[in-house]
Amino acid sequence: MPVIGVAHRRLEGGGKVTGATRFTADLRLPGLAHARLLLSPHASARIAGVDLEAARRSPGVLAALAGADLPDLGLAGPDRPLATDHVSFAGQPVAAVVAETEAQAADAIELIEVEYEPLPAALDPSGAALDDAGAHGATGGGQQVRNLPPNVTAEVRFAEGDVDAALAASHAVARGRYRVPAVHQGFIETHLAIARPEPDGELTIWTPTQGTFLTRKTVASQLGMPVNQVRVVPMAVGGGFGGKVCLIEPLVALLARHVDRPVQLVLTRGEEFAMGRGAPGAIVDIELGASADGMLTALKARALFDNGAGHGGLGGLAGLFLGATYRVPAYEIMAMDVATNKTPVAAYRAPGAPHCYFALESAVDDLAGQLGADRIELRLRNASREGDRRPDGQVFPAIGLVECLEAARRHPIYTEPAGPGEGVGIAVGGWGGGREPAAAGCRVEPGGSLLVHLGSNDISGTDTSLAMIAAETFGVSLDRVRVDHADSGSAPYAGMAGGSKIIYTVGPAVQQAAAEARRQLLDIAAEELEVAVEDLEIADGEVRVRGVPGRSRGIGQLADLGAQFGGRYMPVLGQGRHVVTKQSPMFTVHLARVHVDPETGEWRLLAYAAIQDVGKALNPPEVQGQIHGGSVQSLGRAFGEELAWDGDGQLRTGSFVDYGLPTADQIPDIGVELVEVPSAYGPFGAKGVGEPPAVPGPAAIANAICAACGLRLTDMPADFARVVRSMR
Amino acid sequence: MPVIGVAHRRLEGGGKVTGATRFTADLRLPGLAHARLLLSPHASARIAGVDLEAARRSPGVLAALAGADLPDLGLAGPDRPLATDHVSFAGQPVAAVVAETEAQAADAIELIEVEYEPLPAALDPSGAALDDAGAHGATGGGQQVRNLPPNVTAEVRFAEGDVDAALAASHAVARGRYRVPAVHQGFIETHLAIARPEPDGELTIWTPTQGTFLTRKTVASQLGMPVNQVRVVPMAVGGGFGGKVCLIEPLVALLARHVDRPVQLVLTRGEEFAMGRGAPGAIVDIELGASADGMLTALKARALFDNGAGHGGLGGLAGLFLGATYRVPAYEIMAMDVATNKTPVAAYRAPGAPHCYFALESAVDDLAGQLGADRIELRLRNASREGDRRPDGQVFPAIGLVECLEAARRHPIYTEPAGPGEGVGIAVGGWGGGREPAAAGCRVEPGGSLLVHLGSNDISGTDTSLAMIAAETFGVSLDRVRVDHADSGSAPYAGMAGGSKIIYTVGPAVQQAAAEARRQLLDIAAEELEVAVEDLEIADGEVRVRGVPGRSRGIGQLADLGAQFGGRYMPVLGQGRHVVTKQSPMFTVHLARVHVDPETGEWRLLAYAAIQDVGKALNPPEVQGQIHGGSVQSLGRAFGEELAWDGDGQLRTGSFVDYGLPTADQIPDIGVELVEVPSAYGPFGAKGVGEPPAVPGPAAIANAICAACGLRLTDMPADFARVVRSMR
Repeated sequence: MPVIGVAHRRLEGGGKVTGATRFTADLRLPGLAHARLLLSPHASARIAGVDLEAARRSPGVLAALAGADLPDLGLAGPDRPLATDHVSFAGQPVAAVVAETEAQAADAIELIEVEYEPLPAALDPSGAALDDAGAHGATGGGQQVRNLPPNVTAEVRFAEGDVDAALAASHAVARGRYRVPAVHQGFIETHLAIARPEPDGELTIWTPTQGTFLTRKTVASQLGMPVNQVRVVPMAVGGGFGGKVCLIEPLVALLARHVDRPVQLVLTRGEEFAMGRGAPGAIVDIELGASADGMLTALKARALFDNGAGHGGLGGLAGLFLGATYRVPAYEIMAMDVATNKTPVAAYRAPGAPHCYFALESAVDDLAGQLGADRIELRLRNASREGDRRPDGQVFPAIGLVECLEAARRHPIYTEPAGPGEGVGIAVGGWGGGREPAAAGCRVEPGGSLLVHLGSNDISGTDTSLAMIAAETFGVSLDRVRVDHADSGSAPYAGMAGGSKIIYTVGPAVQQAAAEARRQLLDIAAEELEVAVEDLEIADGEVRVRGVPGRSRGIGQLADLGAQFGGRYMPVLGQGRHVVTKQSPMFTVHLARVHVDPETGEWRLLAYAAIQDVGKALNPPEVQGQIHGGSVQSLGRAFGEELAWDGDGQLRTGSFVDYGLPTADQIPDIGVELVEVPSAYGPFGAKGVGEPPAVPGPAAIANAICAACGLRLTDMPADFARVVRSMR
Repeated sequence: MPVIGVAHRRLEGGGKVTGATRFTADLRLPGLAHARLLLSPHASARIAGVDLEAARRSPGVLAALAGADLPDLGLAGPDRPLATDHVSFAGQPVAAVVAETEAQAADAIELIEVEYEPLPAALDPSGAALDDAGAHGATGGGQQVRNLPPNVTAEVRFAEGDVDAALAASHAVARGRYRVPAVHQGFIETHLAIARPEPDGELTIWTPTQGTFLTRKTVASQLGMPVNQVRVVPMAVGGGFGGKVCLIEPLVALLARHVDRPVQLVLTRGEEFAMGRGAPGAIVDIELGASADGMLTALKARALFDNGAGHGGLGGLAGLFLGATYRVPAYEIMAMDVATNKTPVAAYRAPGAPHCYFALESAVDDLAGQLGADRIELRLRNASREGDRRPDGQVFPAIGLVECLEAARRHPIYTEPAGPGEGVGIAVGGWGGGREPAAAGCRVEPGGSLLVHLGSNDISGTDTSLAMIAAETFGVSLDRVRVDHADSGSAPYAGMAGGSKIIYTVGPAVQQAAAEARRQLLDIAAEELEVAVEDLEIADGEVRVRGVPGRSRGIGQLADLGAQFGGRYMPVLGQGRHVVTKQSPMFTVHLARVHVDPETGEWRLLAYAAIQDVGKALNPPEVQGQIHGGSVQSLGRAFGEELAWDGDGQLRTGSFVDYGLPTADQIPDIGVELVEVPSAYGPFGAKGVGEPPAVPGPAAIANAICAACGLRLTDMPADFARVVRSMR
């Protein structure tokens, strides 16, 4: 294949590197007004009154509003664009000002007086599970087990066999309680959006969304509008890991309607920390048993996700992560979504997975230690394989867990002996893979280039890979392919960029569209060149009669025949519509080598490798880059990322001074090794890439530290203070 | 049919009536700069020098440029965005200023000094045909007859039999030289455009164009760019009759690139007259013979089009108009395109036809007088019918000329006796009909509405009719259908709105797209409702199982299943691609009743009727409105519209004070009568509508005046001065 599998630069990379890309904040709409927000300082309080008079009289102010000034949209709690009678987390928007300039809006915000009556805040998810403060009605997958307490929004259970008996009969059992804290999305571009009311009652929204159509649906649904009255213009995304879909858009739309002007709202970094939604923290209790010969016998686990004041819904996923990676004859897995008075959560790269795999892979390592077994050998013996049935009843297709483990066994980080104070950790991670219907278009331009029409949003280089799919399928080089993103009115449908699903779901639609465009063009060529379609080939931008040198027509020339006044050929315009009903689950194995100072507990990451089954690497350096970036995000949870709230529900890590994003000097070169166990469903065998690398970091680091100094860390992040504390 | 043939309001009408429509002039781009032009005062001159220094120093000026400051694009004469060494018409742009405000640009224009060396101007097309001043290489259809003199840009000939012998043998011969002057487009919105250079080298152009893709192609070709680097955003058109495609766009694009800012240029009304391109004037010599029993025997004609300083290319069309309306055994038709030092011409509603039909229908009337034959009977006896071969070799499909003539014979204007000083005129007009490949899309939205994707531009209510086609085909009411116009990157291909071809060519693509979307939706419904597709029907926004009340699903609900995370159905997205290789020619008959004051020559139009074969009227009031408007444009050429140049080549009718657009008080109620001889190719039998009504006015009025007072007018317009002069 001349294009697929060959390294290509990202199509949109140049614009980003040179600063030429036009982001949402670069737009200047005529008549644009600016909004600023007043956020609640209390984690839980009743709002006794909001005095907006002074703000309304402030220079340049077009409107100052509290929740009661907005139409009642039938939304509850933090789903309301502005709080009404109660606030449920510190950071919840309570009032908004729209003014001619952002500075005027900010000045006016200072003049708003809110009278709060503070209430006790539910902050501990274990306790909150029994509380009766305001809960939210999200539902997960799996089997619901009981009538839920008010703060438990979902609870699911997967079970097989008599797990207690199986544990009792096990030769060895690893037991532990593992904690992974909430983390911030950390994208460079904070949430921002522009909304403009249109003369005919429509609404246009410019936003750096990961999901054009999901944003449209959410805004329409929250504002009670038909979807066809909302137009979403997807802008370049300045970082999105699941949290850039639809957050402030409904509020901005309401403000724009209120002042009948286009309105822009840009969150400050502080606001992003306080109200931008990160990943939940979780507590995972696990018991994992094995026989003397190293076969897993039983798994009992309970995962409790702290979703803050919003919905959750990761329970079903968590059950799969814990129950599907290894073959275990008896299991009982419970997962609970719990609401507390903290910032609500959103999806964040591989949602729920790092928590579960931290517990599972720590337990497997623990068990290997108890059994004196080789850690990779133990995993290999129990690893799930093609044909195995998952707890949700699905059967695994071709998966690469065994291949990744075998590659890890050969990897220098694993094979080279550890020096003094060093330890090597290994951890598996996995992701089921998202599915969603998708469509795409492929047009041949009169100049001879292809234009691929996409409704998907590029957060990770997917445009380039999709263009490569079109190039390979049609038979041209990538420099002849361009990508077009229209707004929600014109773009073909695609789901949000998330769940590692864009290439997997949109790719086949692009493949179809390009193949159809090719067929259409060859039909014209066959008639023009008076030969059968079978005798034609496409090369060097031409359609040629095979074996007859010089008998050819340029692609552009032929396409132009379909766009001629008085012409006799149809326009060349391919379309693909696709749905895939099977997942192609992905597995990865990470290896970490650390050095731990036994005196101080200070540890250093010496080497790191990520081995991942990607099915087929369409654009290898891009796939490697994705894995590299995901690995670093995963490592961030070990190095120090943590959203920490104090006893009053105040976020204590609300800036990049306090919040420990990993920095370049902490991260060694990451050795990425690609394993290719082709998917039967993905384009050219490709599987998703994005989520798996974001999973194993915490377990790999914890297992490495344990290997280095015998300390089994059960809480993330593994910052020095915690390690020292634990060593004591 | 519940939708087609039923009166519907225009979808875009409300916005236009209430002022809500956003036209190009309503846009305010960030950083927008403004351009103004300096036009040549000379019809023909050498440019000896252009001094831009003072203009460049003027406040707010970003750039002042002459032709030499622009890149050499290999264009000649008036095709150059700014003149270089020569000017070929008074009104040709010579220099441009770009400034922060339009007023600053206008002030700076005044400071530019141009040194001209005037040259003799070729103004008479008969003389110019022999001159050797700069000519242009356009080519027409038909057969080219000789090496052309420099100012003849094309010459075509259609011939059959020995026409001179046939004329000599005729019982009666009508001979005449007929003149129709050049006319102005007269649209409310003058030419304007905005161009913005994009960071990646692309160019975005906002323009009220009649042809998104044609504008893209022209700009790309003139600037030497690949088409995929030009993005044309089609804006609402404030009147377009063929002249709103691409005029100032290349220049605005060059200016925008030069200052690296978005630039807007809006022509003033005076500039629109001087450089906006209208319809050519023409001189048509005709000899038409008949036998004693009223059968046409011979037609000899020569049409000479004065195309100003640009290309022409109407010759081929003119031959058809003259040679295809009636059966004539022997003919020789010549048509010449001649260049003169006047404003170049463009297409204007039914280009070339009013001139030819004025001559032809005057000659037929003259002949009827000579033979003492009934004027309709004579036309009926000789009218072309289905199966007749045209001079270009094409065979007529089902045409409605006979049906229109028969309806005219029954019409009260014709049957009611003429009062004193009154006369009734009759005239035929025709139009072959344009053809072009087209594509369209049809999406079903989760809310249950259809979204029709169009690349065509709505200048005459076509969006509404195309939406009706989708509604009828899919099975919903029109209020569930919306239309989406994307830019040239995303829109499906369609030719420019011109030649009466949008419904005829895009309609079937919409029909296909809606039918495909319907099939896709029914496939989902069949699976969801567990019945065969054949057992389903669509009604009231639902898909129902026939004969099982209550067994149904909403259209929106079903479409939403194709846009679900984890869903198992493909997105509902129909596509149509279409090409029609046959024309469906249209004919019309106009009837005019006038009163002429025998003393003063003052005449008044008392009654007017337009009878037209439209194949099938999809939206009857809209079709009637089109015919009404076209008739008035046609009458304008009789009432007083005329672009008049003096002996120096100066336009003497360069404002609406001097240029005689017809006014409402001059026009009586126009009785529109629709004849429906279905086309085998148009959607639901429809043919084009736009051009035919713009054709017969001059002949109908001239024939009516002749009937009233015996005066045969051979020159248009038939203003009072000319009638009085002729009567003397």
